Amino acid sequence: MAEQTASGDFATIRETIRTFVDERDWDQFHTPKNLSSALCVEAAELLEHFQWLQTGSREELGAAKLEQVRHEMADVLVYLVRLADKLDVDLNAAVSEKMVLNRAKYPADKVRGDARKYDEYKDYKGT
Amino acid sequence: MAEQTASGDFATIRETIRTFVDERDWDQFHTPKNLSSALCVEAAELLEHFQWLQTGSREELGAAKLEQVRHEMADVLVYLVRLADKLDVDLNAAVSEKMVLNRAKYPADKVRGDARKYDEYKDYKGT
Amino acid sequence: MAEQTASGDFATIRETIRTFVDERDWDQFHTPKNLSSALCVEAAELLEHFQWLQTGSREELGAAKLEQVRHEMADVLVYLVRLADKLDVDLNAAVSEKMVLNRAKYPADKVRGDARKYDEYKDYKGT
Amino acid sequence: MAEQTASGDFATIRETIRTFVDERDWDQFHTPKNLSSALCVEAAELLEHFQWLQTGSREELGAAKLEQVRHEMADVLVYLVRLADKLDVDLNAAVSEKMVLNRAKYPADKVRGDARKYDEYKDYKGT
Repeated sequence: MAEQTASGDFATIRETIRTFVDERDWDQFHTPKNLSSALCVEAAELLEHFQWLQTGSREELGAAKLEQVRHEMADVLVYLVRLADKLDVDLNAAVSEKMVLNRAKYPADKVRGDARKYDEYKDYKGT
Repeated sequence: MAEQTASGDFATIRETIRTFVDERDWDQFHTPKNLSSALCVEAAELLEHFQWLQTGSREELGAAKLEQVRHEMADVLVYLVRLADKLDVDLNAAVSEKMVLNRAKYPADKVRGDARKYDEYKDYKGT
Repeated sequence: MAEQTASGDFATIRETIRTFVDERDWDQFHTPKNLSSALCVEAAELLEHFQWLQTGSREELGAAKLEQVRHEMADVLVYLVRLADKLDVDLNAAVSEKMVLNRAKYPADKVRGDARKYDEYKDYKGT
Repeated sequence: MAEQTASGDFATIRETIRTFVDERDWDQFHTPKNLSSALCVEAAELLEHFQWLQTGSREELGAAKLEQVRHEMADVLVYLVRLADKLDVDLNAAVSEKMVLNRAKYPADKVRGDARKYDEYKDYKGT
């Protein structure tokens, strides 16, 4: 199967996860619904490290917390790539498509450098 | 700077976002703290599509919802790659490191194919 | 101040939290922004207990997990009541207002007992 | 049944939701698992209003955003009370129990007014 031998960051991670999951027979738990829950939980664990900080810069985090943050980011990515695998979604294509929509929704000359406008535009986004 | 000309899925997405943000002068809003919030919000928007479904398979989602799901997945990825850029995190390395920890934490021969054990092991994970 | 002597579940919890926070001089960290992050993190910790289960009924959870779930529910409530305190929001009034909107948005005779319609209406809700 | 006639903020909200759900025959979708997802989604929608703000004070929010925030807070509360109803959890008792644990975990004389210590203690919490 050509796809499985494809190179690229996502393909490599996808294969690593497939092997990990198959070795544990955990595919049975990996419905898209469950994976999207797990992704949300990991994103919140990432957020937790920042919630009482000012900006969460590398300096403010410090080395120990930064390592934990890196691992939470990995967890988020693992579940995202796994979900993409189960739903047969091409992440690179999805980002390309979405960025076209974003450029149309937030025209640079209208929203440039204005926090208020940025925020209002976020509202229009209706996300 | 060598990194900026690096190929790969993440490097390509990172450059696309940098251009998008710079054109809008939005870097000022992109503290790691704010980006981790935005990532969490997008992950929840993704989850929302699945919350009342049975499993969220492609068939159950249907074409229209699947397109929305693809775009929410793109949003999650965009904020994750942007956060990695701001914290100077190598996502491929982070996943490699984390998978080593996961393999040690969930030994295949102990957790294989057992929902109860899977769940208990998740508890031990303390996430 | 009349409000502080008001009875009711929310007023009681609010006073308990005020005392707890004041004893620790933690009010300085409790911006609405930070509290809404903390609330989201606790909601995700609650979700985590259910993510690999079928329905999460009392029977499926078991006594030990149910106790953890109760504590996560308490954490969510504590941050919600604290946020309401800082923003001077009357939670009972907010629910009453929102339920009027919900009744208008989901007319009982149109959405009754139909998963598909329920879901479509959720989409219209744009939440 | 004595409980149903009980007064109190939670009992009143619980009865309002029961009526709303029964009129729409939506109880079938309200597994604890689904409700905890919905709760998490609403908490993230609440967070979204704050994610690009400085502190999210009433002044920074403004009247229009504050109204949206109030409604998101109502949504969070509705799902929390509904989940408590389905799992037969007494929210007042849960908060009382959890606050006993919190007082033991964060002794006032050790953590008072120190952001760094606050944060470290949060880490110990293992949330």
